[in-house]
Amino acid sequence: LLWAWLNQLSLPRDTLGSVDLRVVLVAPRNPLNIGAAARAMANFGFSRLRVVNPYQLAFREAKSAVGAAPLLAAAEECPSVAAAVEDCTLVVGTTAVGRRQLQHRLWRLEAGARMIKRHGGAVALLFGSEKFGLSNEDMSHCHWLIRIPTVDFDHSMNLGQAVAVSLYELIRITRAKLAPDRRKLAASSDVEQITRMLLEVLKESGYLNPLTAQSSEQKIRRLVRRFAITAEDAPLLLGFLRQILWRFR
Amino acid sequence: LLWAWLNQLSLPRDTLGSVDLRVVLVAPRNPLNIGAAARAMANFGFSRLRVVNPYQLAFREAKSAVGAAPLLAAAEECPSVAAAVEDCTLVVGTTAVGRRQLQHRLWRLEAGARMIKRHGGAVALLFGSEKFGLSNEDMSHCHWLIRIPTVDFDHSMNLGQAVAVSLYELIRITRAKLAPDRRKLAASSDVEQITRMLLEVLKESGYLNPLTAQSSEQKIRRLVRRFAITAEDAPLLLGFLRQILWRFR
Repeated sequence: LLWAWLNQLSLPRDTLGSVDLRVVLVAPRNPLNIGAAARAMANFGFSRLRVVNPYQLAFREAKSAVGAAPLLAAAEECPSVAAAVEDCTLVVGTTAVGRRQLQHRLWRLEAGARMIKRHGGAVALLFGSEKFGLSNEDMSHCHWLIRIPTVDFDHSMNLGQAVAVSLYELIRITRAKLAPDRRKLAASSDVEQITRMLLEVLKESGYLNPLTAQSSEQKIRRLVRRFAITAEDAPLLLGFLRQILWRFR
Repeated sequence: LLWAWLNQLSLPRDTLGSVDLRVVLVAPRNPLNIGAAARAMANFGFSRLRVVNPYQLAFREAKSAVGAAPLLAAAEECPSVAAAVEDCTLVVGTTAVGRRQLQHRLWRLEAGARMIKRHGGAVALLFGSEKFGLSNEDMSHCHWLIRIPTVDFDHSMNLGQAVAVSLYELIRITRAKLAPDRRKLAASSDVEQITRMLLEVLKESGYLNPLTAQSSEQKIRRLVRRFAITAEDAPLLLGFLRQILWRFR
């Protein structure tokens, strides 16, 4: 039961692979970023990584890193963007926009991800190099572009973070239900016993005036119910109150 | 006009600061991660970073990095989790769960972010160390926990990526409208001229049989309309066709 509940918090099986995605890194320079992109893919259940024209040393370093995911070991190196996207029916580029004039349609990530999820076939998602992003030549292979909605256009995102956020948007569930509260609440009899003992404590302490106690009793009964005491916590609270009463007498 | 359109792709002003958030890194070990967390905060419009018990060398290195955001320079170092959250009315921890038995309510990020956005006062969002996450002692300061929905519980996320994804969920818009298509489409007269010239080309080339041309003409007219040719592209296409016809004659 606990395991079923925990599973509900991870990705539902049917989300995995619902998008037939290839993540394409174009001319990445930093092995840490290649590794971070691969890690985000593994986290969110995507497996096909392609790398175009990487800085060779960086790619080799990323692949040989201790604990490199099998995903990284299986990454394909492609000679060109055209080769990296050739089996895809939708090619989407990512951009920070900057001051560059774009020739493409540009969507916010939230909208673009929706279109990617709706697309039936294989999709390539392109990320440019850390320094320059995708070139106009790279973008000419794309059907359209997406942009992660950041504060301004001058602060581009870190490559690994951009990959993580984009993939997260692809797997997040549209209407996350509030999980039902599975804590076991205390039985009413226990809650009432706590209420009675608390009233006793308040009377003995002089907090409650015996003459007006009647109306106060209802206030305190409601107060105790607002705490939503669990079955586990009830004996603890009863112990506290019993001890206080013992001390009074 | 272009600027207004681009702005629509960045964060709307009223999203910024709609959550009065403090990002709290507990015992971070790696200066790159502290820097990455700060960069994600800047990207998504959050400014208050607090660091509890950092590995001192890492914190100093991150703060003194060339180009360190003013945000990082203004990061507050707190002696304890209690001190880091003392001005907050809601304290939320993040966890990879792992095999650990949790004492807290746990929500998927999507649901948790919704509750954070609904909360009226100051919110602290806690991230644990790269290696161990938040301790039970750290978590005892939290009202509840969130978990980024990853594939399994054994692959925890990179700290910088976890911060980026969590903050993104706080600023993403719930219903990203598909931005209206602002490309100016070609006038029907131009589209029809393209259609006629294409038909001429197909006839002259021998592709179209003059006897069955009538029904083919309609097919081709529909085909040309499916392209949604822009005003900018129309003269280009007409030029192509004109050139081909010139070559035929």
